[in-house]
Amino acid sequence: MTQNLQLTADGKLKHFLTPEGLSAELLTQILDTADTFMDNSSARQQIKSMPLLRDKTVVNLFFENSTRTRTTFELAAKKLGAEVVNMNIATSATSKGESLLDTIRNLEAMFVDAFVVRHAVSGSAHFVAQQTAPHISVINAGDGSHAHPTQAMLDMFTIRQHKPDFSCLRVAIIGDILHSRVARSQIHALNILGVKEVRVIAPKTLLPAEIETLGVTVSHDLQQGLHDIDVIIMLRLQKERMNSALLPSVSEYFHCFGLTEEKLKFAKPDAIVMHPGPINRGVEIDSKVADGKQSVILQQVSNGVAVRMAVMAMTMGNFAH
Amino acid sequence: MTQNLQLTADGKLKHFLTPEGLSAELLTQILDTADTFMDNSSARQQIKSMPLLRDKTVVNLFFENSTRTRTTFELAAKKLGAEVVNMNIATSATSKGESLLDTIRNLEAMFVDAFVVRHAVSGSAHFVAQQTAPHISVINAGDGSHAHPTQAMLDMFTIRQHKPDFSCLRVAIIGDILHSRVARSQIHALNILGVKEVRVIAPKTLLPAEIETLGVTVSHDLQQGLHDIDVIIMLRLQKERMNSALLPSVSEYFHCFGLTEEKLKFAKPDAIVMHPGPINRGVEIDSKVADGKQSVILQQVSNGVAVRMAVMAMTMGNFAH
Amino acid sequence: MTQNLQLTADGKLKHFLTPEGLSAELLTQILDTADTFMDNSSARQQIKSMPLLRDKTVVNLFFENSTRTRTTFELAAKKLGAEVVNMNIATSATSKGESLLDTIRNLEAMFVDAFVVRHAVSGSAHFVAQQTAPHISVINAGDGSHAHPTQAMLDMFTIRQHKPDFSCLRVAIIGDILHSRVARSQIHALNILGVKEVRVIAPKTLLPAEIETLGVTVSHDLQQGLHDIDVIIMLRLQKERMNSALLPSVSEYFHCFGLTEEKLKFAKPDAIVMHPGPINRGVEIDSKVADGKQSVILQQVSNGVAVRMAVMAMTMGNFAH
Repeated sequence: MTQNLQLTADGKLKHFLTPEGLSAELLTQILDTADTFMDNSSARQQIKSMPLLRDKTVVNLFFENSTRTRTTFELAAKKLGAEVVNMNIATSATSKGESLLDTIRNLEAMFVDAFVVRHAVSGSAHFVAQQTAPHISVINAGDGSHAHPTQAMLDMFTIRQHKPDFSCLRVAIIGDILHSRVARSQIHALNILGVKEVRVIAPKTLLPAEIETLGVTVSHDLQQGLHDIDVIIMLRLQKERMNSALLPSVSEYFHCFGLTEEKLKFAKPDAIVMHPGPINRGVEIDSKVADGKQSVILQQVSNGVAVRMAVMAMTMGNFAH
Repeated sequence: MTQNLQLTADGKLKHFLTPEGLSAELLTQILDTADTFMDNSSARQQIKSMPLLRDKTVVNLFFENSTRTRTTFELAAKKLGAEVVNMNIATSATSKGESLLDTIRNLEAMFVDAFVVRHAVSGSAHFVAQQTAPHISVINAGDGSHAHPTQAMLDMFTIRQHKPDFSCLRVAIIGDILHSRVARSQIHALNILGVKEVRVIAPKTLLPAEIETLGVTVSHDLQQGLHDIDVIIMLRLQKERMNSALLPSVSEYFHCFGLTEEKLKFAKPDAIVMHPGPINRGVEIDSKVADGKQSVILQQVSNGVAVRMAVMAMTMGNFAH
Repeated sequence: MTQNLQLTADGKLKHFLTPEGLSAELLTQILDTADTFMDNSSARQQIKSMPLLRDKTVVNLFFENSTRTRTTFELAAKKLGAEVVNMNIATSATSKGESLLDTIRNLEAMFVDAFVVRHAVSGSAHFVAQQTAPHISVINAGDGSHAHPTQAMLDMFTIRQHKPDFSCLRVAIIGDILHSRVARSQIHALNILGVKEVRVIAPKTLLPAEIETLGVTVSHDLQQGLHDIDVIIMLRLQKERMNSALLPSVSEYFHCFGLTEEKLKFAKPDAIVMHPGPINRGVEIDSKVADGKQSVILQQVSNGVAVRMAVMAMTMGNFAH
């Protein structure tokens, strides 16, 4: 069902809600399309502006605040020549109690072409995609603890830049797997692209039950878990978890699961370190690692613009308007 | 006086503050201009982008929050090629106690070309139009309980799509007439365009004194009031009224004045149902009616983009800059 | 050091953080460049749109709210064809405790070309300029009580419009010098451009210690201080000062240092009156003066668009990208 919803009748990407159920070919097509927007001809990497979406209107429909994610989508859409309307419904008093469905119906009546949806409730983006008019594309910018597919794809893009052959990679995802939509989408994307192993490393309280069914191995020990790892993905520890019963204390967490230069040595010497940001320095990652030679964290941010351009161009260009 | 303020010396539209005092010819010109922006050539209706306002700057000057109205004006201005600056003065701490007049003076000094004004005080848009520089157009996006002229004109546009001859129409406006700027502007526009009858249906507590002087008939009974009606316009019941002494209770209001499928049968069988939005489902209108065959509520939203383009193109293009 | 930070190796403007340390030639170049954006060919002054910054992205990075300043930078950037992203970090919950440095690193990774920085802490814009990538320009839109260089330059532009020869001018700056970044930048700019005298007029409690070292004369009496003055610059009295121990009362302040028509007569008869806005009518300036014949306050606002265009064009165009 998920596949059908995200794809057109002839198998092209119509919405981008989750990597789950998509083919390796399609995910690779996203990465290849993103590559075409990267201009590496000069010393400084740049993005090619391409007016592929001229006269299109993209609505950033954010029910959760996220200036950073909203900004990358806005920049990506503008690089493609689209108009962008930002609707921050979390802070506005303007929804006037209107239902999500009525909000969608009204916006689609205003001749918009795509919704970039961020919502605290898992499944919201799917709901919007199911309900919206056939000519409108929906891109999930994070729904509850369910999925954050463009983040996962910019991570895949970054991995491929450094380690072109997914099939020989062991990837560790470290931290609060339980609440992380980023981790869920990464696990799906990594398995679809055929990595050798996805290993999650976390305290038991921050792991969902039966996580192995997603196709991962599990470790509760950072030192052991990092053995033989090519790619390290750190997750952000949300402040609300820090004070909850799920964790003993921040310093205890950092002691056990925080990535330091010493711990990093347990992975392969050429392992790359990733983080979706924003970083909690000294909570899940030490500054020396975050800013160190193996870190590709800022490359992830740059790649996010190109990958979001790719997803918008593919979803909004792939079916008859 | 109102006419003079809204019109140039040679009778063209300079500001759009209220339909009151304008001619049927001018209102019809707005509708005809809006028609030219509608592209019905393909299966799906679209809006034609036209760079009539290239190098013009429109300021959305919103002293009341209204993401939806602000968004339609923003989309309309961008479809015409104008730059848009959004100033949400309700939520910003930036006005620093500056007077409305000083705010206007400063913005006009920044080389802007039009103000779209939303303000809680009746008469605000007139005040801005009286005070602003001669080359600047002012469009009223709702002032207190006084006027909301672009909403009224998109309603006229929607009526004309379905019932082209105004002269044979009986139109009912139902609900909180007392506090509604939308109702006031609709009554003026309908009478100027020469409908056979404008009938207001409301409890006595939600009707202004001497409402008949505006050129309406009055009913306090929904069933009787709907007799022979071609067009039904429901008004939104504001939450603050629901809890006030003006109304017994929400359920009692819905029982007496809420539009249900049963009540709808008392109107003509081909009557259309309109609502300015956002809808309070189960308060003033039942979902079955709002989403039913006779509802044209979402068409109103689409028409709003074209009508606002027309008003901006006419006011900002009609006099020497 | 300041010079080096603001200038490229061949002496062109790279960042604009403070007038301090810049040459009269460079400040004059800013004024001359701003002149080229002013179109005075028709009865009404207009700004020339010039696509000098097409495909560039400017980020308005505002850690303090200021709709007015943000809007002039936004308008100026758009007149130059740049894309603008507004980030209001004061009101957004989105920074998630991220440090200023991490925010900068992330934004520069998104392929932006300039930061317009407003921050409550003195030195913030310098910090950003020191830390940011070499290809990015930083424009200070006000940092603490340190500097507000574009405001100072639009003031210089306005003075030159009315009094073309700086070398024969006596300029008075009146009010809360102690807390004013505007005053500091004006004093630097006026001295660099070689005015005959910069005189500050203020109660002792609102003057910094050793203010004379900046190259000013001091008066504590408005009547005496205005003698022989060509240009009067009033400063805004911040509300928080009004209630502090620094001032006896607002009415006492207005009595001693507020500019009225009577007081204005003590300056030269052709003196011009300036104010950075927003005005506190009846606190530091009487409405009859603010709106009177000698006031050039709204011209300052208009000139602000051209001057900000000049600064953006010079900083973003002056070095290899």
